[in-house]
Amino acid sequence: MLARITGPGDLKGLTPAELAVLAGEVRDFLVAKVSRTGGHLGPNLGVVELTLALHRVFDSPTDRILFDTGHQAYVHKMVTGRQEGFDQLRRRGGLSGYPSRAESEHDQIENSHASTALSYADGLAKAFALRGEGRHVVAVVGDGALTGGMCWEALNNIAAARNPLVIVVNDNGRSYAPTIGGLADHLAALRLNPGYEKVLDLFKDALGRTPLVGAPLYETLHAVKKGIKDAVAPQAMFEDLGIKYVGPVDGHDIVAVESALRRAKGFRGPVIVHAVTRKGYGYQPAEDDEADCLHGPGAFDVETGKLLAPPSLKWTSVFADELVALAHRRPDIVGITAAMAEPTGIAKLMRTFPERAFDVGIAEQHAVTSAAGLAMGGMHPIVAVYATFLNRAFDQVLLDVAMHKLPVTFVLDRAGITGPDGPSHYGIWDMAAFGVVPGLRIAAPRDAATLRAELREAAEVSDGPTIVRFPTGSVPADLPAIDRRGPVDILARGQRRDVLLVAVGAFAHLAVEAAGRVAGQGYDVTVADPRWVRPIPAELVELAGEHRLVVSVEDGVRTGGVGDALGQAMRDAHVAVPLCNLGVPADWHPHGTRAEILTDLGLTAQDVARTVVETVSGLELADTTLTSTPNGVRATN
Amino acid sequence: MLARITGPGDLKGLTPAELAVLAGEVRDFLVAKVSRTGGHLGPNLGVVELTLALHRVFDSPTDRILFDTGHQAYVHKMVTGRQEGFDQLRRRGGLSGYPSRAESEHDQIENSHASTALSYADGLAKAFALRGEGRHVVAVVGDGALTGGMCWEALNNIAAARNPLVIVVNDNGRSYAPTIGGLADHLAALRLNPGYEKVLDLFKDALGRTPLVGAPLYETLHAVKKGIKDAVAPQAMFEDLGIKYVGPVDGHDIVAVESALRRAKGFRGPVIVHAVTRKGYGYQPAEDDEADCLHGPGAFDVETGKLLAPPSLKWTSVFADELVALAHRRPDIVGITAAMAEPTGIAKLMRTFPERAFDVGIAEQHAVTSAAGLAMGGMHPIVAVYATFLNRAFDQVLLDVAMHKLPVTFVLDRAGITGPDGPSHYGIWDMAAFGVVPGLRIAAPRDAATLRAELREAAEVSDGPTIVRFPTGSVPADLPAIDRRGPVDILARGQRRDVLLVAVGAFAHLAVEAAGRVAGQGYDVTVADPRWVRPIPAELVELAGEHRLVVSVEDGVRTGGVGDALGQAMRDAHVAVPLCNLGVPADWHPHGTRAEILTDLGLTAQDVARTVVETVSGLELADTTLTSTPNGVRATN
Repeated sequence: MLARITGPGDLKGLTPAELAVLAGEVRDFLVAKVSRTGGHLGPNLGVVELTLALHRVFDSPTDRILFDTGHQAYVHKMVTGRQEGFDQLRRRGGLSGYPSRAESEHDQIENSHASTALSYADGLAKAFALRGEGRHVVAVVGDGALTGGMCWEALNNIAAARNPLVIVVNDNGRSYAPTIGGLADHLAALRLNPGYEKVLDLFKDALGRTPLVGAPLYETLHAVKKGIKDAVAPQAMFEDLGIKYVGPVDGHDIVAVESALRRAKGFRGPVIVHAVTRKGYGYQPAEDDEADCLHGPGAFDVETGKLLAPPSLKWTSVFADELVALAHRRPDIVGITAAMAEPTGIAKLMRTFPERAFDVGIAEQHAVTSAAGLAMGGMHPIVAVYATFLNRAFDQVLLDVAMHKLPVTFVLDRAGITGPDGPSHYGIWDMAAFGVVPGLRIAAPRDAATLRAELREAAEVSDGPTIVRFPTGSVPADLPAIDRRGPVDILARGQRRDVLLVAVGAFAHLAVEAAGRVAGQGYDVTVADPRWVRPIPAELVELAGEHRLVVSVEDGVRTGGVGDALGQAMRDAHVAVPLCNLGVPADWHPHGTRAEILTDLGLTAQDVARTVVETVSGLELADTTLTSTPNGVRATN
Repeated sequence: MLARITGPGDLKGLTPAELAVLAGEVRDFLVAKVSRTGGHLGPNLGVVELTLALHRVFDSPTDRILFDTGHQAYVHKMVTGRQEGFDQLRRRGGLSGYPSRAESEHDQIENSHASTALSYADGLAKAFALRGEGRHVVAVVGDGALTGGMCWEALNNIAAARNPLVIVVNDNGRSYAPTIGGLADHLAALRLNPGYEKVLDLFKDALGRTPLVGAPLYETLHAVKKGIKDAVAPQAMFEDLGIKYVGPVDGHDIVAVESALRRAKGFRGPVIVHAVTRKGYGYQPAEDDEADCLHGPGAFDVETGKLLAPPSLKWTSVFADELVALAHRRPDIVGITAAMAEPTGIAKLMRTFPERAFDVGIAEQHAVTSAAGLAMGGMHPIVAVYATFLNRAFDQVLLDVAMHKLPVTFVLDRAGITGPDGPSHYGIWDMAAFGVVPGLRIAAPRDAATLRAELREAAEVSDGPTIVRFPTGSVPADLPAIDRRGPVDILARGQRRDVLLVAVGAFAHLAVEAAGRVAGQGYDVTVADPRWVRPIPAELVELAGEHRLVVSVEDGVRTGGVGDALGQAMRDAHVAVPLCNLGVPADWHPHGTRAEILTDLGLTAQDVARTVVETVSGLELADTTLTSTPNGVRATN
């Protein structure tokens, strides 16, 4: 039956029985495809019925269906004509793992960062109202995303504007990981049958226990909201207070979900539809995976749900182990994660020193400023987030931490080109954007040994923030220095001092290989890893002045990046050696494997070697004609 | 009596009658001093009793008192030994208008950006708990700041952590401007006498009217919260649900406030103390100033509250007028402000086209992403914020707007060095930090004519975001171009092509003056204003290649700034002309007038001229020895 669904229109005539069959086929399809390509599985298994219902009740793309955190849009893709693409899901040139406007007119938001969809929805609804267009706007947001402050800002405005707008809260009681422990099940059961007595029971339970320790406020408000609605104001007070509330409804009962959505659609103002779902629903290995529900596995065995790839030593594990070692020695070390304890490695600290690790929810701003508070109180916080997510707290890093000269260390996992998640996950901005922050020092370790060492060094810094950033995936073999110049590691040495190749972080291996290739062409290359890349060490500028050409290579945007900063430092020091910056163009790069994207960008040892040889030989040519140019100093660089 | 208060300890023995006298003296002192220096008046008049009570109940600095949006800390400064400083308030070398750790051990947070204090407080309370220190943490936050998402992130975590922590909500029903119109008075009256019947009346009123149109959700929740507490759960349900709630209390009744704070202090968990105050309380001209309550005036006449400075044409007014003109021609133009309609000039659009201007609250993230939604819906939003505040939505500009190639124009007022508000208000980061955003174009107008033109040009851009940024204060005389090279305006022309001086935005006047001075020294200077400064126009790079020396001067950080970007563009184009970047060092600069700070930083026509002459003459010297350096191309730049 699934094969016959080529667009949302094909869903409209189906009977409930046919829909149930279809839902089963969708799940089988998801498991079969994602088991081969890897991808986001658990979240999509949880929204099968919800997505079918959305496309039956609303008329996309005239009506706009917005997915917050787009990794829950696979089912949406399947029913909007893209089933064939799933064999190449998240692969180079293939289907994106997120909504993509290039793929379909049914896709709107390509962003993968959580808590943004309600703000888009507010804007869209305002635009449609101003233009007199009677289109519907629907935003699907997870309960985890409600921990993000942007959702509250948006709800506040949506309530004030009173435009028609349907907010579907996809409530599975967990974002990436369960947020409320034992209480979740109790609440979930109640949600499905929210009669007056049951709600009173909930409050009685809450009052009778010391607990709700660990229950975040939004869950509390959430419960209170239902309490008011059902217990206090039978005439549905919430409708009059700004945002109509429908639910809770069993998100796997497609008839119930449709009925709720139709009621919501008919209302001439903002409505919340509260759908309770189970992440991983309908696939036993995902349901059995308590912690993660197969959230976003690599390729796996369909029978068991076990990953196929052999385990390797990941950057994350090296960090997680070193953090725990550090915490054993230093009682002032605490860890902070924004709803990603396992993927960032904070989970290990959490298991070892539970009182010294904090999961703040999907709330990067609070992660950063509460770290500032911890530092003011005498602790040294380690905030571990994906590089792409620290952008969400730029102002907090700048003012709340750096202006106050507080010792907070940010550990940025998945820095640089990451791969299959595409442009909104690329961690390429950090070294440029955060490079302007006064007093902030950025380390880019090249291997496990330097990651351990630089994390320890960062923890020793007491007068300002530090960043330690490393890429995704397996950590390469250790690459020892053959010499040092101040803080700068020399990884290869050229005798004639033709070229200084400045290698940032994990590109050290590439640089050393490139140096070997260049040597084969008759030029020699010194490879230097500055280790601490912002601000630029004075010794690196000195080294630059001793060579005929400087080439920098970094896994981050060229614009304002480390190489560019080196250029300004050289100008300031009156070092006029030609400089060439290699790195990631500041642009939106597609998904693919990390290796594929780096190859596309010319960031391979072979490409770097070719650039070095071409530039240095062009330079020789220019040297001979240098004094004859009419306008002063001029050289090819 | 005020003169005898040299520290918080001196407050402890006072009787209620003495405190009342003291409060009056504090107000007289505030009005007398601020009328001469300018500064934040209204907010401080509103927190006199609250601040005295805080310092009587808590023991600063052992206990930590944190002020959100530090401009409400004047009274705190007065009772912590800094009365003498008020003659030099906000002046260079004088007292800061915000808490300052360099001034006093009683000051903690120097940040002036709203909605951050609860996050600091959460971190501090966690640190004290881990270290076993029995200190109290108190955060004072305005009701306006509660519209910011960070507050919700923090409350969520504070409720979960359950550490002792007192949150004082200073509720004056307005942030910079009233947020809820007519309902505010009604709520305010009720707040002061929250008996059971009154609360029921509130709900009845709410239910009985269609209204609450325009009542933001937080106000609604706010009301609901009290409803629950007083009407539903006499046994004080909120205490058991995570955050204890005390109030509302009349914030000008010092005995009542103290009593509430003492109850809060004794509780072993998080407590909200809800104090209702009036901005501008006790000074008639401020109370009469409905819109603004003399929020932050310049020097004024004490009798009338009228400003002393003669009115001049401000950058903001030029923008406000042109925006309205544009909106008359273009029905797709809409305006957005984050709680600062008057200071950013959006108020004029709001009065002309009320349905096309949106005040989203102190919620920059939502301002940006709801603009993305409006653009998706076919509108062209103009988001007007102070330059320093756009940093709070860096990720939203990057992904939600730029990655989606949406036509949103950000108008950054108070860009560059602003002056008396000090480092957290300086808008010096935008051209560097946002310079990495792919597809984002930044215009820096130099005068009223170019501001109007560049705003119109920005509104014509349909495939991505634009920024138009300008400084604070009076707009200088128009400075017409004498020629153009593509998009680049030539403001002065040198015949011998010694030096190209690249003038960014309002520094054009300085550059033209500097060029005149340099001409007097025998070198000639071409002055070019690129108008659109990011990305760097190709024509500017061409021009650079035709000169012997390029000097850039900008009212923003040098690191990664326009001059630095020009350097990379020149390298990429193989233009090896020496370049010198002048601008603001990426650092924390003190408060003072704009002119004073620019002088301190060497950003005057005289300084620029001197640098140009020194550099170009050094270059001549280097030219002669150029080929003799051992390591290739080397020149003084």
